[in-house]
Amino acid sequence: MIITLDAMGGDFAPEASVHGAIWAARDFDIEIQLVGNLTVIEAELAKHDTTGLKLSLIPASEVIEMNDPPAEAVRNKKDASMNVAIHQVKTGQSQAFVTAGNSGGALAAALFGLGRIKGIKRPALSTIFPTIAEPGFCFILDVGANTDVKPEYLYQFALMGAVYSERVLGVATPRVGLVSTGEEEGKGSKLVIETAQLLKQASFNFVGNVEGKDIPAGLADVVVTDGFTGNVILKLSEGVAKLILETIKEEFTSRPMAKAGGILARGAFRSVKKRLDYRELGGGALLGVDGVVIITHGRSDAYTIRNAIRAAKTAVENKIIEAIKSAPYQYLPTDQRTPVELLSGGDGFISSLQE
Amino acid sequence: MIITLDAMGGDFAPEASVHGAIWAARDFDIEIQLVGNLTVIEAELAKHDTTGLKLSLIPASEVIEMNDPPAEAVRNKKDASMNVAIHQVKTGQSQAFVTAGNSGGALAAALFGLGRIKGIKRPALSTIFPTIAEPGFCFILDVGANTDVKPEYLYQFALMGAVYSERVLGVATPRVGLVSTGEEEGKGSKLVIETAQLLKQASFNFVGNVEGKDIPAGLADVVVTDGFTGNVILKLSEGVAKLILETIKEEFTSRPMAKAGGILARGAFRSVKKRLDYRELGGGALLGVDGVVIITHGRSDAYTIRNAIRAAKTAVENKIIEAIKSAPYQYLPTDQRTPVELLSGGDGFISSLQE
Repeated sequence: MIITLDAMGGDFAPEASVHGAIWAARDFDIEIQLVGNLTVIEAELAKHDTTGLKLSLIPASEVIEMNDPPAEAVRNKKDASMNVAIHQVKTGQSQAFVTAGNSGGALAAALFGLGRIKGIKRPALSTIFPTIAEPGFCFILDVGANTDVKPEYLYQFALMGAVYSERVLGVATPRVGLVSTGEEEGKGSKLVIETAQLLKQASFNFVGNVEGKDIPAGLADVVVTDGFTGNVILKLSEGVAKLILETIKEEFTSRPMAKAGGILARGAFRSVKKRLDYRELGGGALLGVDGVVIITHGRSDAYTIRNAIRAAKTAVENKIIEAIKSAPYQYLPTDQRTPVELLSGGDGFISSLQE
Repeated sequence: MIITLDAMGGDFAPEASVHGAIWAARDFDIEIQLVGNLTVIEAELAKHDTTGLKLSLIPASEVIEMNDPPAEAVRNKKDASMNVAIHQVKTGQSQAFVTAGNSGGALAAALFGLGRIKGIKRPALSTIFPTIAEPGFCFILDVGANTDVKPEYLYQFALMGAVYSERVLGVATPRVGLVSTGEEEGKGSKLVIETAQLLKQASFNFVGNVEGKDIPAGLADVVVTDGFTGNVILKLSEGVAKLILETIKEEFTSRPMAKAGGILARGAFRSVKKRLDYRELGGGALLGVDGVVIITHGRSDAYTIRNAIRAAKTAVENKIIEAIKSAPYQYLPTDQRTPVELLSGGDGFISSLQE
């Protein structure tokens, strides 16, 4: 198996990306193609012992920077590391693409370069989220690719999420939940109410609406929502965690007894942080494009890059693309379908790419 | 000042509501009208020393239960405590209504009984949310009254939020933020992008888009969003807090050293909990109806009820209704307005009440 890594992508590239690639090549015994400025990559590689590892280098003279406007940058920088890496996948010279770079850029590069899976209306960006209940995480999509959606798109996100959860995350018969304002049927926005009607006809395990509090509680294995709400969910959780941990820190450091307690509990706090860190699981699959694409957080460190490569490897091994292609992405034959064009609203970022 | 309390509303009514009323009457030296089943209320009152307090009783033979369908229940149970209480406000026999009961029911009772403030298209439900930065909280609306909105509604929510933040919460020139997926202008859904255009024309202090992580960070004093997203924000935060605190508990109790540390840090943990508890501030104002209405959490205890009554008192003292009435709820004269009817999408729960 060969996996292509954008060596130039991410806030800590190329240090973190090159280190992560070496780590993954060693742990998983796979070939990693590193794409980017060869001088820079070679300098990083020289810092490590890479004896016996399958690492190959592919030159790319440009980089899509974190604050580049995604679609334009992908169009204008033909020799950007992301474009070159995607080309490797497209031409069958590798089986997956991993990046910690500009996520809009990665999305655009993948969409332009690989295209959508036939029948899939919109690709969706996903993440893995920690939960209290077993298995300790859920899979959320869309977390930002499509700010304005239609019920049909959400249906397809649910389907792709169920396939990914089962094939890549190893959840048997994943419970698929739809984000809403109440658990009862009929609660929520018009979009959600219409979507629930489609999901009820699905062959996968739709368990109904989930409220915000049900997500960390682990009431669903796959949590489906539009990219606007999903993005808010992701970033808000980050913010709330920070609020709580900073409040704890303040209270612990301002009280002598608590300070002593905090020293005794150092190991416990470390473990809490680790358990809450969804990056452990290497999230960020872009589902719906015709190839395995993992887009990890811009702040990814080497360990996160390693885990993202592992996620890509698992996706390839478990034939995620073939599985999505053969999944029943039409909930019912066209002539029996519930009308889904009642809602207006466009498709945001994704549609702007396709115009 | 007279404030009317639905003595029958909330999971812990009438114990918590009656106790909260006594607490507020004592602390704030105001008259509280308790509405509900007099036998039940009198039995609760008998448990306390109410000497010298201004407490009056108003009979109501019915109750809107927590799982009653709101609009039907309000229509069918004419003598429900909520309806009777709202009637007190409507007829000028009291200045504000407070309940911990069925929030949809309270919303419907207030909307039917008091009507909207002239010019306000939709009322919005608000809450107070803890933040890291000073002043330690922000004001979020809508958190559930309107699942489908238009830019014009969001503009009005922003305006009412700014007025409330300044008048009732004491924030000078509150910073008003619009929930979106990126801080840059032009990021977000079509709804948000159109709304931002209106907000830029506002006379209050619109500071632009805020992302999920910016809310607990305290980047805005007033956070505006649709009732779908707001509801998810509210409940998700609750869920994430629970996830973190339960993970901490598990790690502390499973490690002997940490367990000892936890005992030393007991005071710190208590203080953390208190600081994160937005109920301290007595949130839940329903803005846009023609009267002061505070709807607190169904799980409110006596202390929360007391604080909700205090919020009502502050709102009355600071003439919140008059302030909203005289606020520039039209961002520009009709003929100069940005077209806001581009988006379809109805108004969810609220519009169903008005049909």
